[in-house]
Amino acid sequence: MTPTATTIKDSVHDYIELCPTAEALLDTAPMQRLRYVRQLSTVQLVYPSANHTRFEHSLGVYHLASRAVDRLGVDDPLADRLRAAALVHDVGHGPFGHQTEAAIERHLGRHHDEIEWLLTDSELASALEAQGLDPEAVAATVDGRGPLGELVSGSLDVDRMDYLVRDAHHTGVPYGTIDHSRLLYSLRTVDGDLALEAGNVATAESALIARTLMNATVYGHHVSRIAGAMLDRASERVLRDAVVAPERFARLTDSELLSLLAEHESTADFETRLRERSLYKRAIWAQRGTVPDRFVGLAYDRTRELEREIAELAGVDPSAVIVDSPPVPSSPESRAKIVVNGELRRLEERSSLVAGLDACAREIWRLGVYAPEPALSAVRDAAAAVLETEATVAP
Amino acid sequence: MTPTATTIKDSVHDYIELCPTAEALLDTAPMQRLRYVRQLSTVQLVYPSANHTRFEHSLGVYHLASRAVDRLGVDDPLADRLRAAALVHDVGHGPFGHQTEAAIERHLGRHHDEIEWLLTDSELASALEAQGLDPEAVAATVDGRGPLGELVSGSLDVDRMDYLVRDAHHTGVPYGTIDHSRLLYSLRTVDGDLALEAGNVATAESALIARTLMNATVYGHHVSRIAGAMLDRASERVLRDAVVAPERFARLTDSELLSLLAEHESTADFETRLRERSLYKRAIWAQRGTVPDRFVGLAYDRTRELEREIAELAGVDPSAVIVDSPPVPSSPESRAKIVVNGELRRLEERSSLVAGLDACAREIWRLGVYAPEPALSAVRDAAAAVLETEATVAP
Amino acid sequence: MTPTATTIKDSVHDYIELCPTAEALLDTAPMQRLRYVRQLSTVQLVYPSANHTRFEHSLGVYHLASRAVDRLGVDDPLADRLRAAALVHDVGHGPFGHQTEAAIERHLGRHHDEIEWLLTDSELASALEAQGLDPEAVAATVDGRGPLGELVSGSLDVDRMDYLVRDAHHTGVPYGTIDHSRLLYSLRTVDGDLALEAGNVATAESALIARTLMNATVYGHHVSRIAGAMLDRASERVLRDAVVAPERFARLTDSELLSLLAEHESTADFETRLRERSLYKRAIWAQRGTVPDRFVGLAYDRTRELEREIAELAGVDPSAVIVDSPPVPSSPESRAKIVVNGELRRLEERSSLVAGLDACAREIWRLGVYAPEPALSAVRDAAAAVLETEATVAP
Amino acid sequence: MTPTATTIKDSVHDYIELCPTAEALLDTAPMQRLRYVRQLSTVQLVYPSANHTRFEHSLGVYHLASRAVDRLGVDDPLADRLRAAALVHDVGHGPFGHQTEAAIERHLGRHHDEIEWLLTDSELASALEAQGLDPEAVAATVDGRGPLGELVSGSLDVDRMDYLVRDAHHTGVPYGTIDHSRLLYSLRTVDGDLALEAGNVATAESALIARTLMNATVYGHHVSRIAGAMLDRASERVLRDAVVAPERFARLTDSELLSLLAEHESTADFETRLRERSLYKRAIWAQRGTVPDRFVGLAYDRTRELEREIAELAGVDPSAVIVDSPPVPSSPESRAKIVVNGELRRLEERSSLVAGLDACAREIWRLGVYAPEPALSAVRDAAAAVLETEATVAP
Repeated sequence: MTPTATTIKDSVHDYIELCPTAEALLDTAPMQRLRYVRQLSTVQLVYPSANHTRFEHSLGVYHLASRAVDRLGVDDPLADRLRAAALVHDVGHGPFGHQTEAAIERHLGRHHDEIEWLLTDSELASALEAQGLDPEAVAATVDGRGPLGELVSGSLDVDRMDYLVRDAHHTGVPYGTIDHSRLLYSLRTVDGDLALEAGNVATAESALIARTLMNATVYGHHVSRIAGAMLDRASERVLRDAVVAPERFARLTDSELLSLLAEHESTADFETRLRERSLYKRAIWAQRGTVPDRFVGLAYDRTRELEREIAELAGVDPSAVIVDSPPVPSSPESRAKIVVNGELRRLEERSSLVAGLDACAREIWRLGVYAPEPALSAVRDAAAAVLETEATVAP
Repeated sequence: MTPTATTIKDSVHDYIELCPTAEALLDTAPMQRLRYVRQLSTVQLVYPSANHTRFEHSLGVYHLASRAVDRLGVDDPLADRLRAAALVHDVGHGPFGHQTEAAIERHLGRHHDEIEWLLTDSELASALEAQGLDPEAVAATVDGRGPLGELVSGSLDVDRMDYLVRDAHHTGVPYGTIDHSRLLYSLRTVDGDLALEAGNVATAESALIARTLMNATVYGHHVSRIAGAMLDRASERVLRDAVVAPERFARLTDSELLSLLAEHESTADFETRLRERSLYKRAIWAQRGTVPDRFVGLAYDRTRELEREIAELAGVDPSAVIVDSPPVPSSPESRAKIVVNGELRRLEERSSLVAGLDACAREIWRLGVYAPEPALSAVRDAAAAVLETEATVAP
Repeated sequence: MTPTATTIKDSVHDYIELCPTAEALLDTAPMQRLRYVRQLSTVQLVYPSANHTRFEHSLGVYHLASRAVDRLGVDDPLADRLRAAALVHDVGHGPFGHQTEAAIERHLGRHHDEIEWLLTDSELASALEAQGLDPEAVAATVDGRGPLGELVSGSLDVDRMDYLVRDAHHTGVPYGTIDHSRLLYSLRTVDGDLALEAGNVATAESALIARTLMNATVYGHHVSRIAGAMLDRASERVLRDAVVAPERFARLTDSELLSLLAEHESTADFETRLRERSLYKRAIWAQRGTVPDRFVGLAYDRTRELEREIAELAGVDPSAVIVDSPPVPSSPESRAKIVVNGELRRLEERSSLVAGLDACAREIWRLGVYAPEPALSAVRDAAAAVLETEATVAP
Repeated sequence: MTPTATTIKDSVHDYIELCPTAEALLDTAPMQRLRYVRQLSTVQLVYPSANHTRFEHSLGVYHLASRAVDRLGVDDPLADRLRAAALVHDVGHGPFGHQTEAAIERHLGRHHDEIEWLLTDSELASALEAQGLDPEAVAATVDGRGPLGELVSGSLDVDRMDYLVRDAHHTGVPYGTIDHSRLLYSLRTVDGDLALEAGNVATAESALIARTLMNATVYGHHVSRIAGAMLDRASERVLRDAVVAPERFARLTDSELLSLLAEHESTADFETRLRERSLYKRAIWAQRGTVPDRFVGLAYDRTRELEREIAELAGVDPSAVIVDSPPVPSSPESRAKIVVNGELRRLEERSSLVAGLDACAREIWRLGVYAPEPALSAVRDAAAAVLETEATVAP
């Protein structure tokens, strides 16, 4: 640390020191925009303290990457590239993060991690180049490719280490409080691969457990899922009606999207409902096994067909039915590598917990059907018939 | 606590149990709006984690009021009134809280604590009445009047107890971490007055100290003051130009105000600067004694005159000069009552620290003159001449 | 809470209010003695901050029991009995808690939870009777018997809730930081049985997970196990040689036991080693499957036989060999009851994680053979031969 | 950080990395002894969680010193000397730390910071020399002398930074939670002097405030003072009666001293009282101004004279009276240097708070007279007469 380094006070990691590249990147509009994108989107409707942003999270990921490269003995320019990638890894996120991802993908054909367009076509690219960094290489790192890219996006990445601890701090739910310092201290490279030193099975498991429990209590809470599904439908409308170009849409902040929805006739009701927290309610909430397997993890078009079918049967407007059937989750952490007797092994080969956690994740899975209060009863009956399930939510 | 009470998880107070009145009030639009008003407004431009809202703070104040009335043995209906007042105490805040207060006052002639209009003319009033509460009485309590009103707004109120601890949690600055439980445990009533039990001079002092240190490092940080001054000037323009009615203005959220500023020609530049954090900079930063006393604590009209005078001398547009001379702060906590040898005394009579803290608060005071980068040098010279000071900030 | 209640400040639960029974019990010598028995015994040799005592833990358990009985709507006198049992639940512990349990049992034929003798023959019994409580009933409650006894000792008891959080606070290892408030809020009684309300599978799992991870990193750390095994052998000698009566032994504090060991010739070396942290080292550290099943979970006499056999083969004094083969752990939490569709179910029937955690616990299991440095190499070879294992620890 | 560095988990600073010198020093008996000396001595009789030791505190001070020397750009061998001095700075403490300091000084004529004897005559000296360090130079540093010695013992030393935060963590009293990282970041050297960078008056004040408030609520709590005074009198007896040599006395642990007191006839009663927390009680508790100035800050001999005088008048045994009149406290922090306009200034010259805090410290001062319950009333009257005060404590 040089005595003149700029530091930023963070509620999770205390002081974060900025390298010159970080200072330059923070000054760009794409990074400043992240101050206005909440890290946990609509989770604040359930956990009112969860208002932390992708900006502070990005600083945290940068900080952990800095500590990791010091620890691993990585030198510049690779170290600088890794820190830069950690800092900008979220600039590709649209408003409300993951909750508009699918809509953006449908209209723009890209995933938020593919941030090349941002890197090659923006103030950010210039800032990177001014620091002697190749935007393409940084983008590859953000995507988990290239030397040590898995530190930024992989089974044990610093992204996850930061968000678990940060989400715990801001929701008040302790499950995410992992020992991230021990994870950092345990990192080593084996022939260029990132792995945990021997004796750290429990360390690796703890990260997987933390995410599983945070999924169960925070990330997958039904109120947040309902709000997210409403945002997806509303986003679809403004994109379909060309109220906004997809490229512009992807760069909105949370509140800019809400303003847009408020002004557009077919989405104004959604915006009011989100703002005043008078959301759709659950008509169906079905565990695996209580709904036919063909309804698990539905494609968007099929989802819309089912919504129309249910609406018709219920005698309500199609906009009054939302079907939400996500894919069954996977556990990237279980692919983490760990040194066992001098050789690399996948965590899933070594841990008796991984299978249990996978089963746990599958059990948490739910298919939801949501509707506004007045239509709730009719939608419940219709959805139960169409989806061949008895997993209705009691009125 | 009844087994069926609804609880909300809070990052500061853990679980908060809601009484029926609280549940009803939370369902109203004025309360939900507070989710979109940041507790510390533009402080997040300095402390990136400070994104907590007046919504979660309101829940915290409600929680502390609940504990206090239990502790003091206050029964319903007064207890219910106090809890309700604690919960709604901030609904009168405009966008960005205190930072638009002065502009609203100039155009609406009221202070945010005078929330009668909200209580008598809104969904909130109906909700209160439905719970058997008199909106006028609740409004008086919010204003610190009536039985135990000082619990909600007074020298030792639960508002302060919550915000100090919450702001510490979210900024990462520990100074606000007071022993709020001890404050609560020490409360008692003496002939209807709220006071601290004997032996709690240090307890009372600690709250005063915490606020003084938080002022010095957080609340009064110059970056936040600059952003606040820019918001005030921008607010003035949209109100003056009748872009929005003052009544409507006062009910905007933070982001709704920014959207409004973005759309209006004379304020669009301010909005971009706030959003991208390319703020005005300090030309002058003058401590008391380095600027004539007549420039300490300026009225708004006089401020604008000085701005025009400086701008003219500097040869820049008047909008390129902001003069910011707040009044010298007072310490309401020093009026807190404490039991000494069976009699009530003011803290300031008993504590050797109060005078020191007052002096400290006066020392922290600064007059600022701010300008955009290109005009900075010219404004610096002109302002030094007009304000007869040498307290310029080095380029 | 009455305004006059005595409160004690605790580092984990903040203020703890004492009922009159608690105040009376705390004033007794058996309770004050717990100030000098460390909660985690020799774990402080690994985690230097782990110096918290059974006294503060007892206060914490009392506090959680108080909150639970309030929550469950239990009235006095049962509530008072439950609180009293929670407070005194650990008075039966010998010095260094669990680490001298086996030695005491061998010589006294009782288990620390069987605290009748203490309750019927001491200052504590009088104090209980003076508060209108029946010592026998309190003792039964400590043992998990009688109405709601499982709150104090059962699969979801307040003992566990406190120690997990407290041990995390004091070691710095975050895994124990469970959401104990949510556990408390979720408790209900169904036909007299304690259970968790529906929707709390993850809440229950989290406690089980926390203990599994704390076992792996804290409670079962090999340095603490070695120290514990040394204490057991030393205790055996002073008891065998009648240096101290077993009844007196069981009431010593940690340091009183060390003083005793220091003064006795055959244990002075152990005491020096513990005090100066120059412990025996691992010769063998064998996972299940790497040692024949007949060596898993050895009875004491068999252990001593094996030690003599190994010592003879190694040509060292029998006191230079310690064999440590604990039973494979069980998970009492998996028997916790939870309401599912209105019926009581065991957690293990509902959770996919329980089996994984059980497997995990089995994997953490190790058989250890320990020896002082000079004898280490010889003992390693001899033990490998006698125990038919290759799981030696590299020199 | 080298990948192979040993780390220790600490409840306050998370992971602490050990340099080779630290590893070597920790292995010595004098350092291991500190595991058995409580940091806050008898404060645990008031705050039951305050069982942290001088061992973990020493690790914390070492950690902060390491960070500081990195920050200041100090290289080896000076850096190594500073780290070593930080680690061993407390080895000179007797049992119960400051509470036996006066007794040791009376019989040994030295102060605990004068640790030359330990450094030149022990395992520690050899360990230092084996690491290439000069024990004399390390001892001077512990004493605050020599290059940057004030980092270890001075107005802004790392000792204070650690204990404030650690004592807060373990007592649960938040006042000590200073922003120690900011203090570290603000350190710089000006012509060899340690100072805070400009703009850190509040940072420095916060440390002073923290100590003042911790004094008022924790360090100077009357229960701990009574226990400390009892320890002093008991220590005096075993030293006077040559039960133990002063050199040996000074190296006892807390519990070894208690064992010694228990075995000696004239001190057994004190030991029982301390162990069972049935302490002497306050007969007199006099603020400055309520007792003649000549009784403020009494020398030991004068204290004993007054005790005899009071005992005689009360008709009780002299051992039943303890007079405790400490000197009025000073504030070393107020001498901290801070850069103002490029020049070094003392904090007391720049801060309006220092005078207030000094006054505050003077107000907290109390003269106490303590006696066992049966003699309390007689001692109260006699002491009031002898000390010419009315500041008796109500029965």
